[in-house]
Amino acid sequence: MKISVIGLGLIGGSFAKDLGSQINVDVYGVDNNADHCLQAMEMGLVKNILSLEQALETSDVLIAAVPVDALEHLTLSLMDKMGDHQLIIDTGSTKKLICNAVENHAKRGRFVAAHPLAGTEFSGPKAALKGLFQNKKNIICEREKTDDDAMQTAIKIFESMGMHNIFMSPEEHDKHMAYVSHLSHVSSFMLGMTVLDIEQDEKQIFNLAGTGFASTVRLAKSNPKTWSAIFDRNKENLLPALDQYILWLEKFKIAMADGDRSQMEKYMTEANDIRRVLDK
Amino acid sequence: MKISVIGLGLIGGSFAKDLGSQINVDVYGVDNNADHCLQAMEMGLVKNILSLEQALETSDVLIAAVPVDALEHLTLSLMDKMGDHQLIIDTGSTKKLICNAVENHAKRGRFVAAHPLAGTEFSGPKAALKGLFQNKKNIICEREKTDDDAMQTAIKIFESMGMHNIFMSPEEHDKHMAYVSHLSHVSSFMLGMTVLDIEQDEKQIFNLAGTGFASTVRLAKSNPKTWSAIFDRNKENLLPALDQYILWLEKFKIAMADGDRSQMEKYMTEANDIRRVLDK
Repeated sequence: MKISVIGLGLIGGSFAKDLGSQINVDVYGVDNNADHCLQAMEMGLVKNILSLEQALETSDVLIAAVPVDALEHLTLSLMDKMGDHQLIIDTGSTKKLICNAVENHAKRGRFVAAHPLAGTEFSGPKAALKGLFQNKKNIICEREKTDDDAMQTAIKIFESMGMHNIFMSPEEHDKHMAYVSHLSHVSSFMLGMTVLDIEQDEKQIFNLAGTGFASTVRLAKSNPKTWSAIFDRNKENLLPALDQYILWLEKFKIAMADGDRSQMEKYMTEANDIRRVLDK
Repeated sequence: MKISVIGLGLIGGSFAKDLGSQINVDVYGVDNNADHCLQAMEMGLVKNILSLEQALETSDVLIAAVPVDALEHLTLSLMDKMGDHQLIIDTGSTKKLICNAVENHAKRGRFVAAHPLAGTEFSGPKAALKGLFQNKKNIICEREKTDDDAMQTAIKIFESMGMHNIFMSPEEHDKHMAYVSHLSHVSSFMLGMTVLDIEQDEKQIFNLAGTGFASTVRLAKSNPKTWSAIFDRNKENLLPALDQYILWLEKFKIAMADGDRSQMEKYMTEANDIRRVLDK
């Protein structure tokens, strides 16, 4: 099987690493960043660098792992030229806009809308990790709109990398992601901002970070362009989530200002319930 | 050396584990929770359980690892009865109130105000971890108010457990902790609250948590009583920190609502600077 990965960042690069090590799979790379292409070749991430046209000519499967704001344009232009037996898998972090964009395309059946729930706070080909997707969840949207053979191939690819597939609508996906992923990123970015803003003594931030700060602020290291695109495309869900978060912080602040320890404990005890949910 | 650990929770229990394995150190335990005493004996955390009076009679060193709201009363009552060669080490997460409370005591020189920056989101004797303090920072306040021999003994104890000591005033300690530790906890507790409040579908929270949420919400599993006491005692510093945090979240929300990606990216790029500070 010949697979082209378009976008050789953290996600695309990690796909290339996992797939390239499999028997009878050739992985090619496409990226409009020349440095990324060079790095991917030097690292042996891909067998060769291709142009988009070359990738379309030679590939059975195209995997789009570009920033979400470049996704529709890329996907539609590929679908316009695709053959009847090729397929394109999208791996982006928001799903409603891309699913709407391809909805009425003649080749809709050759498109798979997916979102592997894996990542780190790093970016670029050098951030690629073998096994990044092992035992991770992968959300597939609008399964019924993809041709059976294309879906079977996509699922074979995901399963060969150790992913567990979950199926939901693009609307559900974007709503859940606003709470469980995107809000965490906003919370972490602004926590980093607050501490950098007020703690003028960087040596103390560094010295004292072994106190929970390092884990809560980890996501603040993430790529701003990647995330501004995601936030912007999911603001319909993320804005109300952020409002709710600010409201809870305000409520907690009032309890603290009032010296109302039992109210603070009541809130924290409710929050403790996350342990039961996550540590099943 | 005979050491009594008062309060056999995560911190006290971990002290007992590390010190109890050393040659020529006998570790005793004091705890007003009978279950904790039983668990500590069953786990072999301590050589024996003592009453406070027995601990005072037999120990060279007393380590107070009780919740911060019980600390002053305990410490002062011990200092009233202590001999001239005994010493008491406090390990609490806020330092100004305890330092003020002991300031004019006749035995001030036998008191060491410390805060080892280590912990997990778990609590009780079963949460005790051997090596918890290895390579961790330990803040010591008002070093000059402790007798030299007492400070030397305390430092020997901390270093034997692999801690690196930092010295600062109680005011500096509490201010830095508000930003670098306490705010992270509030942020995480309320993130957990927000997600639990809105995501009625717990299975989805669990399924989708591999998206940054698990690390940002980890601290929301922490003990409510421990943290309400810490927040309450440091609210002078924590309230303005929380205000700043809410302000940044509001600013970010406005940029997002306006679809102003370049402003969002500007904030996130500034927040990225935390990478340079933390990953030295």
